[in-house]
Parts: sequence; structure tokens; C-alpha cells
Amino acid sequence: MPNDQLQTLRTKNPEEGYQLAVKLAQKGIVLTQPSEEIRKMLRPVYSTNADSLIATSQVVAIHFQTVAFANNYWNQ
Amino acid sequence: MPNDQLQTLRTKNPEEGYQLAVKLAQKGIVLTQPSEEIRKMLRPVYSTNADSLIATSQVVAIHFQTVAFANNYWNQ
Amino acid sequence: MPNDQLQTLRTKNPEEGYQLAVKLAQKGIVLTQPSEEIRKMLRPVYSTNADSLIATSQVVAIHFQTVAFANNYWNQ
Amino acid sequence: MPNDQLQTLRTKNPEEGYQLAVKLAQKGIVLTQPSEEIRKMLRPVYSTNADSLIATSQVVAIHFQTVAFANNYWNQ
Amino acid sequence: MPNDQLQTLRTKNPEEGYQLAVKLAQKGIVLTQPSEEIRKMLRPVYSTNADSLIATSQVVAIHFQTVAFANNYWNQ
Amino acid sequence: MPNDQLQTLRTKNPEEGYQLAVKLAQKGIVLTQPSEEIRKMLRPVYSTNADSLIATSQVVAIHFQTVAFANNYWNQ
Repeated sequence: MPNDQLQTLRTKNPEEGYQLAVKLAQKGIVLTQPSEEIRKMLRPVYSTNADSLIATSQVVAIHFQTVAFANNYWNQ
Repeated sequence: MPNDQLQTLRTKNPEEGYQLAVKLAQKGIVLTQPSEEIRKMLRPVYSTNADSLIATSQVVAIHFQTVAFANNYWNQ
Repeated sequence: MPNDQLQTLRTKNPEEGYQLAVKLAQKGIVLTQPSEEIRKMLRPVYSTNADSLIATSQVVAIHFQTVAFANNYWNQ
Repeated sequence: MPNDQLQTLRTKNPEEGYQLAVKLAQKGIVLTQPSEEIRKMLRPVYSTNADSLIATSQVVAIHFQTVAFANNYWNQ
Repeated sequence: MPNDQLQTLRTKNPEEGYQLAVKLAQKGIVLTQPSEEIRKMLRPVYSTNADSLIATSQVVAIHFQTVAFANNYWNQ
Repeated sequence: MPNDQLQTLRTKNPEEGYQLAVKLAQKGIVLTQPSEEIRKMLRPVYSTNADSLIATSQVVAIHFQTVAFANNYWNQ
């Protein structure tokens, strides 16, 4: 659906950049498991497992590197 | 087969860049396990396992860094 | 809540940069598991598990790369 | 043996760059486990395990970053 | 305590840079598990487990990237 | 011992750069587990385990990024 398309890596500030990084991490999961039903079934599993949460945070961290660089770290 | 060859890292926009990152992640798996039959057997396993999905998303994230940099983050 | 918003990646020195990296790693977990109650239940699990601690430290390391670069490594 | 020596990171195009990244990932395994016999025994294990395949693809992704940068992303 | 504060990423040479990377990796663990008593209990577990040692080495590798860059790779 | 000290990240060519990356990965393990006796006991475990070998190769990959950059990818 159109509004899920990734238009730009530019964001107004670090907070929005972080939100975009989260979205990018989720996008990787959606593309591998397109069924919303299955993803909903998995959610209580990984969201209550410490190691899964840490792993999720790591994927966000990698995307945040990309987004931060794309925005010149919001300096200026 | 020729149309699986990686021709360029340039893409028109972030959305296509992300799709290329997914393709690059899959390519790593295809080269290690060339049998389409075995890969098809594995698919229901990892696509319904939260930790496998997160790990897949991480590989995509690393490739997306590369693709985004190659495209100067689509800034102009 | 407003004071959880990420305002800037600039910090005065490496020590504060590291603290920010820790905060960025935690933010990824909070966004995936918003319930403070569940996160508190998970804390004794991962904070007494060596592999979970190492994985947490890795997420911090990735964010510290980003923060250090954003601050030009505090050179000058 | 001489033809296993890594001569250069330059490749003609992204496709060859990806092949080099795969070779670099394998080299790390060969140096840790020099016995070809043992590596052959392990192959059916990891090549039919989804998580091992994803992990392999991740190592390739990291090397592909390096190779792509070394070739200025094949942008001229 | 003051002498645990991270003052600078500059080091005289690669050897000291590597030592700093190790310190940065440990710092991530200390901040997540502040109890020295618990960390001491965990030490025999991860220091005799091959996979934990490899994971620790990976966190050090990420920090070493940061420190090496901050020091312009000690070239000149 | 002096000859284990890391003197420089410069190497003559990619092959020697890769060897240095392997040495850097091992150094992280030696610093966490200084006992050569214990490390020797662990070696048959991880060197015959596919996932441990892949993880080792990943640490090498991260260090190879650092070494390659330090050497300007041996271009010229």
C-alpha cells in the first residue's frame, strides 16, 4: 500500500530519525513474513523475550546509523 | 541465470533501495544453499519464527546501509 | 513523555556520548515492548545472563559508533 | 596455496564484488577450521539450517560493505 | 568513580586503542549489570564458553572500529 | 609478551590485512580468557561447530573492514 512506501531518509530531528529506523526494521520483517495474521501471533512471543527484544533493538541501531548519516547527524 | 546478476547498486529511491537490500540478503542464502527445493522447505520454518525474522531483518539492514551510501542517501 | 524525546546526538564528551548510546539502545526496547511492567519482569532475566549482557553491550557499541561520529569523536 | 591468496578488493562490477564477499566469508571459516574433511562434514548441517544460512548471509553482507566501498560502489 | 569515566577516544597506538575497545565493551556490561558480585559470578560462565567468547570479541571489534577511526588509524 | 603487541594496522596487501583481522579477532578472545589451557580445551568445540565458525568469521569480517579502511583498501 502506498503509504508504506519509503519516500526519503530525511527527517526533521533525531527523534523522527529513530522512529524511521524502527519502521525500517519492521519493514524487513514484513517483507519476509507478509501475513499480518502470523506476525500478530509472533508478537507476544518476541515482545516478552529479553533476547528477542535486544536483537530487535540491534536491527534498529543499524538502521539508525544509516538514517543519522543521511541527515548529517542533524548538525545544523 | 542472467537476470539474477547484480548489475548496479543505484536505485531510483529509498523504496527500491530497500528492495535491493532484501535481494542482496537472499542472494547470500542462495549462494550457500543453491537447492531451491531445500530453501522452500526451510521457508515455513524461519518465516514463522520471530528470532529468524529479526535476524533476516538485520542482514537486510546491513545491505541497506551499503545501498543507501552507494546512492548518497538519495539526497538529490 | 517529552523528556524521553531524542533532541540531539551532540554530547559534551565521550562519557556523555556513551550514556546517550545506552539510552538509544534502551529506546529500541521500549518502543517494541512499551509495557514498563513487562520490561521490569524481564530485567532480572537478561541482567543475570552473560550472553544477554554481551548482546546488550553490542547494541550499545553500534549506537556509540553513531554518536561518536556525530560528535567528530570529540576531537577538538 | 597461491590461488587462494587475496590479491585485491577491486572487482569489475557488483556481481563480482558479491562473489568476492562470499569468498572472504569462507576464508574466515577456512582459517579457523583448516581441515577440509571436517568442513565437508559440517556443510550439510549449516546449509539445511535456516538460522545458519541467515548468519552466513550476514557475514557476506559485512564483507560486501567493505568490497563495495573499496570499489567506490562501482559508480564509475 | 572518576577513573572509570571515559575521557577521550585518542590513544597513542593501536595496542592502546584495542585496550580501550575492550574497556568500552566492558562498560556496556557494567552499566546494564552494576552489581560487581553478579558480574563475578557470571565470569566463569562466559569465559569458558566458546560462543560467549566469540560474542565478546565481536563487541570489542565494533568498538575498535570506532576507536581506530577516531585516531585516524594511527597513520602518522 | 612484546611480539603480541599490535604495532600498526598497515599491511602490504589484502592477504596480510586479512591475516591481521584474524589476529585481531583472536586477541579479543585472549584478553577475555587469558588461560591458554582453557582456550585449547575450547578449540575442538567451536572449530567443529558450524555456527561457531560462522560467528568467528563475522568477527573477522568486522576487523577486516577496519583494516581495509586503514589501508585505503590497498588502492595504490
